[in-house]
Amino acid sequence: MQPYMYSDLGIAITPGPGPNTSDDLVSFNLSDTNEPVTIANDLTYQPAGLRTCAAALGIKAGGKLDFTVMTLPQPGPAAAVFSQSRCPSDTTLRGRECLANGQLQAVAIGSGNANIFTPDSTSAVDRLVTLLEREFGIDAPQILLSLTGRIGVPLPMQCFETGIPHLAKTLCEQNLDAASQAILTSDTGPKTGSVALGDVVLAGIAKGAGMVEPNMATILVYLFTNAQLDHALLQDMLHHAVNASFNRLSIDAETSPSDTVALLSTATTPLPPRQIAHFRQALTALCVKLARDMASQGEGVTKCIEATVNSPLGLPHAERLAKQVINSTLVKAAVYGARLNWGPIVSAIGKPVSGHDDPILDRNQIVIRLQGYDVFRCGQTIDVADSQWFEALRTDKTIRINVTLGAGGSLGRAWGCDLSPAYISLNAR
Amino acid sequence: MQPYMYSDLGIAITPGPGPNTSDDLVSFNLSDTNEPVTIANDLTYQPAGLRTCAAALGIKAGGKLDFTVMTLPQPGPAAAVFSQSRCPSDTTLRGRECLANGQLQAVAIGSGNANIFTPDSTSAVDRLVTLLEREFGIDAPQILLSLTGRIGVPLPMQCFETGIPHLAKTLCEQNLDAASQAILTSDTGPKTGSVALGDVVLAGIAKGAGMVEPNMATILVYLFTNAQLDHALLQDMLHHAVNASFNRLSIDAETSPSDTVALLSTATTPLPPRQIAHFRQALTALCVKLARDMASQGEGVTKCIEATVNSPLGLPHAERLAKQVINSTLVKAAVYGARLNWGPIVSAIGKPVSGHDDPILDRNQIVIRLQGYDVFRCGQTIDVADSQWFEALRTDKTIRINVTLGAGGSLGRAWGCDLSPAYISLNAR
Repeated sequence: MQPYMYSDLGIAITPGPGPNTSDDLVSFNLSDTNEPVTIANDLTYQPAGLRTCAAALGIKAGGKLDFTVMTLPQPGPAAAVFSQSRCPSDTTLRGRECLANGQLQAVAIGSGNANIFTPDSTSAVDRLVTLLEREFGIDAPQILLSLTGRIGVPLPMQCFETGIPHLAKTLCEQNLDAASQAILTSDTGPKTGSVALGDVVLAGIAKGAGMVEPNMATILVYLFTNAQLDHALLQDMLHHAVNASFNRLSIDAETSPSDTVALLSTATTPLPPRQIAHFRQALTALCVKLARDMASQGEGVTKCIEATVNSPLGLPHAERLAKQVINSTLVKAAVYGARLNWGPIVSAIGKPVSGHDDPILDRNQIVIRLQGYDVFRCGQTIDVADSQWFEALRTDKTIRINVTLGAGGSLGRAWGCDLSPAYISLNAR
Repeated sequence: MQPYMYSDLGIAITPGPGPNTSDDLVSFNLSDTNEPVTIANDLTYQPAGLRTCAAALGIKAGGKLDFTVMTLPQPGPAAAVFSQSRCPSDTTLRGRECLANGQLQAVAIGSGNANIFTPDSTSAVDRLVTLLEREFGIDAPQILLSLTGRIGVPLPMQCFETGIPHLAKTLCEQNLDAASQAILTSDTGPKTGSVALGDVVLAGIAKGAGMVEPNMATILVYLFTNAQLDHALLQDMLHHAVNASFNRLSIDAETSPSDTVALLSTATTPLPPRQIAHFRQALTALCVKLARDMASQGEGVTKCIEATVNSPLGLPHAERLAKQVINSTLVKAAVYGARLNWGPIVSAIGKPVSGHDDPILDRNQIVIRLQGYDVFRCGQTIDVADSQWFEALRTDKTIRINVTLGAGGSLGRAWGCDLSPAYISLNAR
């Protein structure tokens, strides 16, 4: 299969042989040598010294892994991005405080209970951190804690009281796979990726963007590297990567109170200045890979949607309209039924948005391309007579919608998914 | 059944015996005498002199009514509100121009083809208006034209060329019922209402808020009165009524390029100054009735949702959050499955919105009431043990969600509907 080029992100995505978007290969070329680098689908490249344990503490039923701790040998530079929800969780509020000093030595994640909006949620977080501090010998501010799962239900504290004191001895290296399982809730499978740039490695695990137990979607992403980079540079790179990936993703336009993307470094391997740009590329490519995996594994998803909008009004306008396209219920239902044409797309880009005084769009400047074929141009419908195109709308795992509002301008991109009866069944049960 | 009071709107809604929300009775008490007035479900009260014709011109297949013209004996004061879409239709753009002089003598509506984004859409509108001007002897600027239905397909001009020249002789009074049929596309049935205040009458017909043929949702509403009121006062009252009704409605968060709400008056019946407030109440109540009928007749709808948010941050914040609740895919799917609890509601009110720098909400101030029972208060879940409540979530035709963010403040309201597999099937076919 031919790769699909993301020239604005410097990334190529080559459709894989399997039926899932997560089988696709994400790659990029090093900015100076042009040498190709591919993101591995697995966790081949983990930083030395990163140790992981995972256990079934009883938060989830049925003996499933539901708690994981990942530690570095010592505090290292770290960066993180948290949920913008106006109803944030205690762990989100605490996470922002932890990151204030720019360092972390551990992340701990419990899955099955999000500890949201319960009377004792704040004291429960304090107690968990105390238990972790004691067991792992790591100062509390160096431990980032995340919780995901059911909401409104008090945390089963006895599980943690009993379980945490036995964990440290089970820590081992090259064990991120266990963590990638332990952070899942209703996900259909783990989402992993890693990449090497010489001796510098970068590995990531992710959960979410489907519904969670059965109330909320939460994105949790943990990235680990050995690159010697300071907090400020890591934070800048992470912001750039998150903006290019997770912030462009929507499954159902819901925002969780607990979304977290964190990047920790052992800072053991020097990164020559010329390779800083490479690291930035690799981080962005890995985040794009994980974001696409989330979209394709959203609940009830049968197809991914990728929308781009080129707007002469600039990047924020372009990105907002691209999101409007992938969030349109009409577009999502039509993609599910392989019946999409430009009508719902025009409705989506024309939608008036409170707080934004967008100008009237000039229909004669609008070009709408669907799965590689122009379907609207110069103010009129273009009939596509190619049967391969109809077949592609039916069978391709990613449906691409490209809108141009005029010459020049900026390209905004968004990733989403279709809306199927299975999504409703899963969330109506 | 006990009426449900909308004290902020001065309206009461009494659940009717039938299974549909449109069977409910909307009423209000006159502001001075407190005398009750009920909005009739039908078109009993039509202004004298208002004449209507409806015909099957062949825009729709199968000989269905697809064109209607309603005329006044002479130009009268008029008001209208049009789509805020950034991709407006030619009829929307032209409609705004027509209303600039504050008068109308006729409205004409074609259904089955929206004349949107076709190369000749502008000249097609011009030609239709010329045909209407000639046939009905009414100056072009006095004729408001609306078109709804398929998009991207050129108007079948021959239908109009042949059909319009035979229409004027079929005009007759007390014939709005025919128009209420002719403006429908995929609606499950006509939406009508009327009311009398002494000799002053007010009648309305509406279509839409389901999907249309199969691409777009369009709201079309035409209101007629005999009250002697000038354009400015009519426009002010209509804005107030639309803000309290149609602007609070969302079926699928899509905006049509052609939405139109118009109010025309024969201006033959004096309205004593003390009755101006009554007229305003009646207009608002009629618009609320028609908006609720649209929500309950949206495609695939099994239940209506009504959300209120009381916000100390003021009315715009309260209204925006109420809309976020009814537009939440999670809330809609859970209402469909009769499985709603406060989780998706918190997610919806917590959603960060571009362009609005909302503060973090204080969970201890949040009260969430669902179908008459508090389910979240003082920072914690309230367990409802009443089996009648579960039964109500399953069988009531309107699910009411009431959120309070703190003491005092403003009440925002929004009407919506659930999301069912049938909606997807209808729009994926």
